[in-house]
Amino acid sequence: MENRSEASQYEFLWPIRVYYEDTDAGGVVYYANYLKFMERARTECLRQWGYEQDVLREELNILFAVSNLVISYDKPAVFNEELEIKTSVAKLGKASISFDQSIYRNGNKDRLCAAQIRIACLNATDFTAQAIPDRIIKNIKNIISRS
Amino acid sequence: MENRSEASQYEFLWPIRVYYEDTDAGGVVYYANYLKFMERARTECLRQWGYEQDVLREELNILFAVSNLVISYDKPAVFNEELEIKTSVAKLGKASISFDQSIYRNGNKDRLCAAQIRIACLNATDFTAQAIPDRIIKNIKNIISRS
Amino acid sequence: MENRSEASQYEFLWPIRVYYEDTDAGGVVYYANYLKFMERARTECLRQWGYEQDVLREELNILFAVSNLVISYDKPAVFNEELEIKTSVAKLGKASISFDQSIYRNGNKDRLCAAQIRIACLNATDFTAQAIPDRIIKNIKNIISRS
Amino acid sequence: MENRSEASQYEFLWPIRVYYEDTDAGGVVYYANYLKFMERARTECLRQWGYEQDVLREELNILFAVSNLVISYDKPAVFNEELEIKTSVAKLGKASISFDQSIYRNGNKDRLCAAQIRIACLNATDFTAQAIPDRIIKNIKNIISRS
Repeated sequence: MENRSEASQYEFLWPIRVYYEDTDAGGVVYYANYLKFMERARTECLRQWGYEQDVLREELNILFAVSNLVISYDKPAVFNEELEIKTSVAKLGKASISFDQSIYRNGNKDRLCAAQIRIACLNATDFTAQAIPDRIIKNIKNIISRS
Repeated sequence: MENRSEASQYEFLWPIRVYYEDTDAGGVVYYANYLKFMERARTECLRQWGYEQDVLREELNILFAVSNLVISYDKPAVFNEELEIKTSVAKLGKASISFDQSIYRNGNKDRLCAAQIRIACLNATDFTAQAIPDRIIKNIKNIISRS
Repeated sequence: MENRSEASQYEFLWPIRVYYEDTDAGGVVYYANYLKFMERARTECLRQWGYEQDVLREELNILFAVSNLVISYDKPAVFNEELEIKTSVAKLGKASISFDQSIYRNGNKDRLCAAQIRIACLNATDFTAQAIPDRIIKNIKNIISRS
Repeated sequence: MENRSEASQYEFLWPIRVYYEDTDAGGVVYYANYLKFMERARTECLRQWGYEQDVLREELNILFAVSNLVISYDKPAVFNEELEIKTSVAKLGKASISFDQSIYRNGNKDRLCAAQIRIACLNATDFTAQAIPDRIIKNIKNIISRS
């Protein structure tokens, strides 16, 4: 009767290849660039759920923006590596979604970094907070609960 | 007899201009790029303290790398704005420094984002944790306590 | 007896998705970022030919660096678009490779930008020019002439 | 009676510091990032001439976008270096400005790269070519001929 057993097992996987543009003179991926990787994965996760962000903006005048995040860097990724990003939904709020995202070396359990990232639904014109449309929330709930 | 009154008042200020490269199609600064701004400020802060990171690497074989961070985004910065970054030392550990960094619109108290960023001292060859050399810790303590 | 009929028809295709990180406040892909896309395509082209750049560096102590380029921007790409990069070899020199690279909207003939990019083979230690190893030149010639 | 003696001697100087974000795992500044540096310098040059690009867009609905460029990379810049960008006007057209831009190690004549970059004046709404307003052309001519 634990909460954990009821929690969603939904997990979205997205591969990333490390190019020169991602690295710095320390020989590893520059710390801010992991956040680029994670946003690519969130964009692809939304796409898999059926949401193209350019369409959301044109048709519903909403956009999603990061409101806060926590990230810890455990091991560095280097040039030419293949990584994998695991994305899951930690909390689906009325006007925000909190994602858990971790980056692994492809094909094993070697975690490089882990983040909790909250994105807020905003009015695309004035950037004020806005409720996520009901049918989107229902759809996402449906998707993540099926897993 | 409050702790606050004993806390360091040291604060390092660094100006940033927002260029096209920093913004995205949402019309605002891309979320990962505030971390670039903050690293520029930390680099300049270390320089003001007397530490050039290329010299630290060559002479002492150490480098500083971000081990974890928390950041909250309050208001977006837009193209062409002048911003100001305030950097202070939250904690000076044996092998790490925790910074408080906030970005403001220049000349007022309008805070755009705030972060706590911990950098770890690493061996530049194998990226293992390493104590910050004593004389560097003493020097930093001296600088931030004078403020 | 035309030269064109003897020219290599080799062409390497690589898809690119435009994310927020790639765009700027003008609403389009930032001009320097097309060069990131093109380098990803060159990296993947070299990989298809059998060359991992990290291995080239470790085993042969060589790296490839851009020595000069020309690029013209015809039409802008926007957020969320799928693009396709076409890469071909314009000239295979003793110590350099000149690539023709163009970016198209995926699935049609709408060219967004076109570049000629010359990469030089360098000694990875001192960045001096270095001949591309013979067997690599032969292998590339073989690959591009088969097309 | 040479043209060269009549040519503008106008030159705009802008300093750049190389941070980790600018470098790659090759240990040097990533090739596309020199174009970021050059755009910062063009932005500051326009500002010195009296033109804020956000104001140009709001008041005149115009923006400047790079239409083509040539760049040659002579020597690499490394982490923590101070560079200087020299910007001059090669040609002032009716709807475009061609800049010559070179990057030097600060304080000497060691040229790292040199570019010719043409920016076109565009309608900010539909990105069609547009004449640069007469009074702007006259003002720029005046500024660069005084030098």
